[in-house]
Amino acid sequence: MVSAKMRELGTKKSTIRTIFEFGRMRAAQVGEENIFDFSLGNPNVPTPDFVRDAALDILQNVEPSAVHGYTVAPGNPNVRETLAASINARFGTNFAGKNIFVTSGAAAALTICLKALAESGDKFITFAPYFPEYKVFVESVGAKFDVVAPRPADWQIDFDAFDALLTADTKAVIINSPNNPSGAVYSRETLIKLTDMLKKRSEQFGHPIFLISDEPYRELAYGVEVPWVTNFYRDTLVCYSYSKSFSLPGERIGYIVVPSEVADFDAVFGAVAGAARVLTHVNAPSLWQLVVAKCAGKSVDITPYERNGKLLYDGLIAAGFECVKPQGAFYLFPKALEADDYAFCERAKKYDLLLVPGADFGAPGYFRAAYCIKTDTIERSLPLFKKLAAEYGR
Amino acid sequence: MVSAKMRELGTKKSTIRTIFEFGRMRAAQVGEENIFDFSLGNPNVPTPDFVRDAALDILQNVEPSAVHGYTVAPGNPNVRETLAASINARFGTNFAGKNIFVTSGAAAALTICLKALAESGDKFITFAPYFPEYKVFVESVGAKFDVVAPRPADWQIDFDAFDALLTADTKAVIINSPNNPSGAVYSRETLIKLTDMLKKRSEQFGHPIFLISDEPYRELAYGVEVPWVTNFYRDTLVCYSYSKSFSLPGERIGYIVVPSEVADFDAVFGAVAGAARVLTHVNAPSLWQLVVAKCAGKSVDITPYERNGKLLYDGLIAAGFECVKPQGAFYLFPKALEADDYAFCERAKKYDLLLVPGADFGAPGYFRAAYCIKTDTIERSLPLFKKLAAEYGR
Repeated sequence: MVSAKMRELGTKKSTIRTIFEFGRMRAAQVGEENIFDFSLGNPNVPTPDFVRDAALDILQNVEPSAVHGYTVAPGNPNVRETLAASINARFGTNFAGKNIFVTSGAAAALTICLKALAESGDKFITFAPYFPEYKVFVESVGAKFDVVAPRPADWQIDFDAFDALLTADTKAVIINSPNNPSGAVYSRETLIKLTDMLKKRSEQFGHPIFLISDEPYRELAYGVEVPWVTNFYRDTLVCYSYSKSFSLPGERIGYIVVPSEVADFDAVFGAVAGAARVLTHVNAPSLWQLVVAKCAGKSVDITPYERNGKLLYDGLIAAGFECVKPQGAFYLFPKALEADDYAFCERAKKYDLLLVPGADFGAPGYFRAAYCIKTDTIERSLPLFKKLAAEYGR
Repeated sequence: MVSAKMRELGTKKSTIRTIFEFGRMRAAQVGEENIFDFSLGNPNVPTPDFVRDAALDILQNVEPSAVHGYTVAPGNPNVRETLAASINARFGTNFAGKNIFVTSGAAAALTICLKALAESGDKFITFAPYFPEYKVFVESVGAKFDVVAPRPADWQIDFDAFDALLTADTKAVIINSPNNPSGAVYSRETLIKLTDMLKKRSEQFGHPIFLISDEPYRELAYGVEVPWVTNFYRDTLVCYSYSKSFSLPGERIGYIVVPSEVADFDAVFGAVAGAARVLTHVNAPSLWQLVVAKCAGKSVDITPYERNGKLLYDGLIAAGFECVKPQGAFYLFPKALEADDYAFCERAKKYDLLLVPGADFGAPGYFRAAYCIKTDTIERSLPLFKKLAAEYGR
């Protein structure tokens, strides 16, 4: 009577959702302050004042139809020019407005790219650990989803494993740096090796393998460079969101960069527009288009995230955990203290420590701890992590 | 290299777009004031002050994370309750928050419903004249699209033609009242006959035929009742948008009503959530959710539309056109003065009268004139319509 697939996608609770609801239930029993919920990737640094001030200024001083009217599908032309100029100033690129397609956030940006590119029989590859919605999005456009096994030493790329999956049916490779859930940032070295491999295989297969760079955490990097990917590889599409950089996740605003150098720009940009149309992203919310243009080049204060990441990392290491040092985003991805990460996260619940099993991200044996929460909560959680580790003889 | 279908959908210009661009070109040649562009359905009544004031109040007085944070996918629970209560107060219904799924506008609402319902081999039916994107949206979910021939006498329903198309593979019927492009509003009598027929055929086929009521023009009705469809038929999904009622088309905010009485509510609501997820409508823009709840029950001043509609209608009748009297929305759909509506609209261009051929809406021999433009433009266009009619001996 309804689509069984849509029903399943709409009703089957994700692990994260189940953990979150458990947390709400426990909070009602023992009090909010006694729940240590590391499950959700919700930015907790408040939306910056400059964003609110820009919105107020636009609402008070711009003619309403210029604020709230339809924009053309790729976005307000002035906004596109401004965003392109801002990227150019930061990364030495040479984009124009025509290279920017403004979207309703990064999930839309990514899925629009997938739908634009996917032909029958295509495969999309990503790297574990990965954001679980990637699988849903890729399969929703009728393509095959393949995952490269993780490299736990530093969460960079296992190139042998990658090359083994790079077959002729590969339409695109999805990267996410800074990474959810590992917190890793791909180094220049990693990007050079990755794109060299893509160039070689594209030539061998006689068609471009696109690189889709999903960058909602771009601005959240702590003392490391986040290299700009189009500078390494021609056939790159960049997906961006202001959810984290402006703490605006509910407003759904971001963009796609389609470089002019991409193989057949007109075809790719046209297909992006067609995909946005059938996914009914008529235009990105028009007020927020103006706001992000007005705030181009700025970002939230990331020091609270950096402080939290360091605090949690140091605490976990002191308690006997193994963990790659945080480089970006707002997640740690430590090794679970037993092979079964589900069992480990269940045991952590005894202390009301809410953690997400790594298997959910394609990396069993690890767990994700989101540190975009109150610093005080992290401080008070550390003795509990110690107790938990002690149970495992650490 | 890219999806040929997406490329086609993103690059093939619609007739309306082509006419609009012709208008821009002519405006550059002869001046904006000499172009009489009736091609676009863009609301021209400004966004009401109460909407702007609500947005300002929320931005200034509500904690940012409560304004700009993610909401759950179906929308902010308080917003859903408020919208349900507002509908109940107006239409004597009994909805709760759980019956509302807040969306990014009506295009998203409609496509989410289609995707939620569509199973392999399904057919969706609508009535000519119809909004051309319906075909794109229905085909994008892999379903068959069928159109009931129009009833030009009053643009209500040709029930014999409808019944002939109502086959066992019919998943849902899409209605749009007040209608784009005809301006007709379905009467109680029409809705009773329509829903009686659906009840009979649902029973015969042994499965519900859903009724999807697409209502972006609900508040734009001139002296006629727009009956509330769920009061006539159990298996109704209502799609609504604030694009016209609040003149907010660029902000993408609307909702779906899923009544509790619908056959298997949990399945339908679950599938709606799944469809929103894969169409990457993560949540409707969060500020605008709060704004529309704060303004629930209000609407723009529709008297400028009513005045324009009467002015244009009277002028066209005086010039010798045949046209059903405007009842709602902001369109007239008169008979072209020759059988070939494309040729007629081409001839109208001589006078810089920009009209859309009815064939684009599944009703050849007619044309659409959008009167959501300056009253002065309409006044100055009337002598030109007279000259055009004179060419046809009127």
